[in-house]
Amino acid sequence: MSKVIQLPDDKKPLSERLKAVLDGDYAEARDAARAFISRPEMTPVHPDIPKEEYREKTLAWIKDMIAEGYTKLPYDKQYGGEGEREKYMNIVEIIAHQDMSLAVKQGVQFGLFGMSIGSLGTEKHSSKYLPDVMAGDLLGGFAMTELAGGSDVQGISTEAVYDHETRSFTINTPNDDARKAYIGNAALHGEMMVVFAQLKMSPEGESMGVHAFMVPIRDKDGKTLEGVTIEDCGHKVGLNGVDNGYLGFKDVKVPYDSMLDRFASIDEEGAYHSDIKKKSHRFFKMISTLVTGRVFVSMVSLSGAKNALTSAVDFAEDRKVFGDTLMDKQATHSRLLPHLADAYAMHFATRFLMDEFKRGGPEVETMAAALKSKSSDNAVAVVDEARKLTGGKGYTSVERYGVLHDDMDVFRTFEGDNTVLRMLVAKNQLTHLARKFNGAAGLDKFKKALALHARKRLAHFNAGSGKTDDTHLTDPLTQRKLFAMRERAMMYALSEKMMKISKAEGAAEAANQCQDDMLAYADAYAERIMMQRFVKAVDAQQNPEVKAVLKDLCDLYAVHTMRKNALWYVENGFMKTQKTKALAKLEHKLAEKVRPHAKDLTSGFAVPQSVLTSPENAPKAEAKTAPKAAPKKKKRHWPWGR
Amino acid sequence: MSKVIQLPDDKKPLSERLKAVLDGDYAEARDAARAFISRPEMTPVHPDIPKEEYREKTLAWIKDMIAEGYTKLPYDKQYGGEGEREKYMNIVEIIAHQDMSLAVKQGVQFGLFGMSIGSLGTEKHSSKYLPDVMAGDLLGGFAMTELAGGSDVQGISTEAVYDHETRSFTINTPNDDARKAYIGNAALHGEMMVVFAQLKMSPEGESMGVHAFMVPIRDKDGKTLEGVTIEDCGHKVGLNGVDNGYLGFKDVKVPYDSMLDRFASIDEEGAYHSDIKKKSHRFFKMISTLVTGRVFVSMVSLSGAKNALTSAVDFAEDRKVFGDTLMDKQATHSRLLPHLADAYAMHFATRFLMDEFKRGGPEVETMAAALKSKSSDNAVAVVDEARKLTGGKGYTSVERYGVLHDDMDVFRTFEGDNTVLRMLVAKNQLTHLARKFNGAAGLDKFKKALALHARKRLAHFNAGSGKTDDTHLTDPLTQRKLFAMRERAMMYALSEKMMKISKAEGAAEAANQCQDDMLAYADAYAERIMMQRFVKAVDAQQNPEVKAVLKDLCDLYAVHTMRKNALWYVENGFMKTQKTKALAKLEHKLAEKVRPHAKDLTSGFAVPQSVLTSPENAPKAEAKTAPKAAPKKKKRHWPWGR
Repeated sequence: MSKVIQLPDDKKPLSERLKAVLDGDYAEARDAARAFISRPEMTPVHPDIPKEEYREKTLAWIKDMIAEGYTKLPYDKQYGGEGEREKYMNIVEIIAHQDMSLAVKQGVQFGLFGMSIGSLGTEKHSSKYLPDVMAGDLLGGFAMTELAGGSDVQGISTEAVYDHETRSFTINTPNDDARKAYIGNAALHGEMMVVFAQLKMSPEGESMGVHAFMVPIRDKDGKTLEGVTIEDCGHKVGLNGVDNGYLGFKDVKVPYDSMLDRFASIDEEGAYHSDIKKKSHRFFKMISTLVTGRVFVSMVSLSGAKNALTSAVDFAEDRKVFGDTLMDKQATHSRLLPHLADAYAMHFATRFLMDEFKRGGPEVETMAAALKSKSSDNAVAVVDEARKLTGGKGYTSVERYGVLHDDMDVFRTFEGDNTVLRMLVAKNQLTHLARKFNGAAGLDKFKKALALHARKRLAHFNAGSGKTDDTHLTDPLTQRKLFAMRERAMMYALSEKMMKISKAEGAAEAANQCQDDMLAYADAYAERIMMQRFVKAVDAQQNPEVKAVLKDLCDLYAVHTMRKNALWYVENGFMKTQKTKALAKLEHKLAEKVRPHAKDLTSGFAVPQSVLTSPENAPKAEAKTAPKAAPKKKKRHWPWGR
Repeated sequence: MSKVIQLPDDKKPLSERLKAVLDGDYAEARDAARAFISRPEMTPVHPDIPKEEYREKTLAWIKDMIAEGYTKLPYDKQYGGEGEREKYMNIVEIIAHQDMSLAVKQGVQFGLFGMSIGSLGTEKHSSKYLPDVMAGDLLGGFAMTELAGGSDVQGISTEAVYDHETRSFTINTPNDDARKAYIGNAALHGEMMVVFAQLKMSPEGESMGVHAFMVPIRDKDGKTLEGVTIEDCGHKVGLNGVDNGYLGFKDVKVPYDSMLDRFASIDEEGAYHSDIKKKSHRFFKMISTLVTGRVFVSMVSLSGAKNALTSAVDFAEDRKVFGDTLMDKQATHSRLLPHLADAYAMHFATRFLMDEFKRGGPEVETMAAALKSKSSDNAVAVVDEARKLTGGKGYTSVERYGVLHDDMDVFRTFEGDNTVLRMLVAKNQLTHLARKFNGAAGLDKFKKALALHARKRLAHFNAGSGKTDDTHLTDPLTQRKLFAMRERAMMYALSEKMMKISKAEGAAEAANQCQDDMLAYADAYAERIMMQRFVKAVDAQQNPEVKAVLKDLCDLYAVHTMRKNALWYVENGFMKTQKTKALAKLEHKLAEKVRPHAKDLTSGFAVPQSVLTSPENAPKAEAKTAPKAAPKKKKRHWPWGR
């Protein structure tokens, strides 16, 4: 990884040049992070480790991150930070190669906990807490989800009742089902939590909706504070380095200043104020801070996928099956190469998401929801495929497929359940469409737009739906159009269907009967972004060899995805079957073209070798006691006679 | 489960009647097995358990099975068994609900080890070993797979050299890569292994191909024998109750009688004899004993799927999301109900497989390979979906989704890798077709058959490809035809493609370029069987309510599967898009019809409640020490001032 000899760019091995493309502006920071996770003390844990030990190890790694100066990066300079959030995200993306519990625990501490103090609170909160947060002197968590509530966060039951006389809030968990659930850092290490609760101005008073409060749960000695009940979530499917817990509150009083009051506050006379008038609008403004977490999950899921792809390609290149190299088999191409193309597409898409996130683009919530779902689903799928390809070897815990699978399993649930997030994508885009075509006049405009879209589709159908030549199918413009038109057509169809059912059976029924369409739409949306970003990334390349390899991989992404969606294209008049069949053939052809570069493409991920496996914790006793070779001619007694 | 009051059949709750359908002739044995696994000592282990402890627990359960008299069931009466193999399989299918390590360890001991002694050996072996095998006095395993060999079992490197002077065989592992790998019962409990090795009649002599030998590896005190090297596979992704190991042999001598000599033997003069002349034919005859294992995996995978479906439907019925019951949501229908239909289809298909297995049907190897792949893939997929649906709760290890996933993960690899097995299905059927159309005259016949098939397809296309009404789509004859014609057409197309490529580029290239088609064919083959058996099961019902519910579920299976394969139907002229669109609508309609019976349908599986979760091993310390409710009015010091 170290750049001792500076070769002119095109003399470097292809894998190095691909790495440079992927690392982009953060090459130096990412290489430093690679060196960081390659330290002996960062060797991945073997899953045999007791969770108690794993949790302490994860905390020790957090401290290593602090010592390295990493954790100051995402915070503003005025609080002792460095204002380098993007750099930090890049580093965490690399750290995720080594251990997902570490990636998640840092996410709880420096993301969910620290960032929500910064973005939901005001100056007084940031200056008071952030220096301790980034130094690890105040460990905390983010207590939003409740046991029975799941994704319905706006409907949480925890209450914070304001008492103007004492200028304090009393936090209560009304029943067991309302306990805060699966809260990271709660079971063991957290001292304080950002607790989300329904704010009431008096015990019987009206709820002002969900607000966040800084609530201490433990003293400095780790003793649980009065009124707080903490239960350990215990062993989990994965992420056992993170101490998740359930939290209950019984008459827990916190002072006035504990309310994070950026979007709403209580004045000296005890009156409630907010610039955002509607409860639900306030709520959605508050939870928009969750976007950071979703950007984070998109990126670290991809890291897990890169681990698995690296290991699996290495295995397939080494393995002989019935005399041939496994990587040369058609089935192996189909099992690995589209996933490899997908990982590159997602890499470029997440860079774009990060850019949008930085500049606060209007679609960032939608994009983050779509890419988070897609990336976490893909990551689990690629790890699963890699494990299967690697057979019995992949089933031993020395290989890390099991751990990666089990750790990332919940990436599809937390920071927004993927099903709920996909519906959010569709809802946001429906709202966007409704705004564009507002009111009765709008409905006419909408119908005109639909008609225009239908005409365009027809024109497209006549022009290209039967074309089958490779030049046509690998034309970036054709590809982008086919992805974009699919997304548009699905949104229009969804919108029409919703209006129709809504009119006949009501809005709730319409929403329910369109769930599957909404889910499908969200993926089309994500795929369109991935396609666009991949094409742009190919365009941007100067080096001809890099450009050619990435173009083939981009084509594989495009063709594989279109083939996956071919039924839709046929059913909706975008493709004739001669075209969908041509795609199937072309996919095999592209796989053949990509195959010689498979190892370069995974080497471009530059996942350090030391984090691809996890050594066993205990020495193998029997292997050492059993004789390696028996002394010859010695008479042995076989236990035949039983 | 106990039948205290005998109600007339149609007064029983629907779930009881469905249970009766599924349990069939083995209702009593299955209920007894349910009682067996409901014992307190059979409570599923929490995954937090150290593997050493889990292994001993699994062995103790094996002894409970022996004490219960179960393990005598599959063996012939003349050796002390009961000749009730099917009953035994039914019992093991129930036991799998409780613990997959137990199911697998019994499979190693009483299936792979015991059954191969019975079927590869002769009378002398059976009478000597089987009584001890079923009593658990001789624990053993099945040492076939080698580290670098994977699925290429015919190419194993372990050697057994015959020496006529001493009438013994010397077993050697030529290099580390040739070690026997992932062998159950090898790391800890096994005393003797059925070892597969290349038989040579002299050190430099010709190999007679793969043969099996009884090789002791440990003495009665558990000490590894001289010349044998045992290494523990250590912690694995799942199945940590099974002690898998690597085995190496260095000049290990075993006497003449250790050769399992049903298909080949060495006479008194030291000459080799076999009725099966071709090495590879002998080999395939020998490994046809693996079929039992594949029937077993089909069945126990289904048990795991039933656990997950039961838990997930219970959760979805209880859970409120945004005010509605989760089970009422369209997305939940789509996530769970096709899996439920699939589980019923697989249940009926595995009963048929068992019948074919019993009667030694000619297609049993093909069927077992196809259904094993399908069932194990499905099981992992349904557990995955159930875990996601259950959110954070499903991620705690108290729920068993993680364990089920990780245990069954390798079901897709062992007893034949699913990719390799699917290719076996296609190869067997290609061979079958080649036999049918043998030689040059056959090629003409084949071309005529193709033309006839094309004409039939055309007739079908004209008659039904545009039909969209529910009566047509739910007609069992239509459904069966669409499944069967798909399978046939895929086989014909595969065969044509292979011949074409073979002629131009050679047989090896043809085989490689047809891998994806072969894999797809194998699933079409499995789906056709599942469809047929489901239709037959519906036909067989007398009770109108049961028949109606099963008919809807069968329709859901048919329609969902056809919808999944809709692109193929369209591309191959079997369906017009108005039909594929009608299928999508009908699938939602059928889901609505099935939904009210979801809980009855999972209750019909009769998975004991006690095996659906695994309690934690240690008491939750903190939950007990933290005060449940804080005393009021007591002044507390908040740690604000830091």
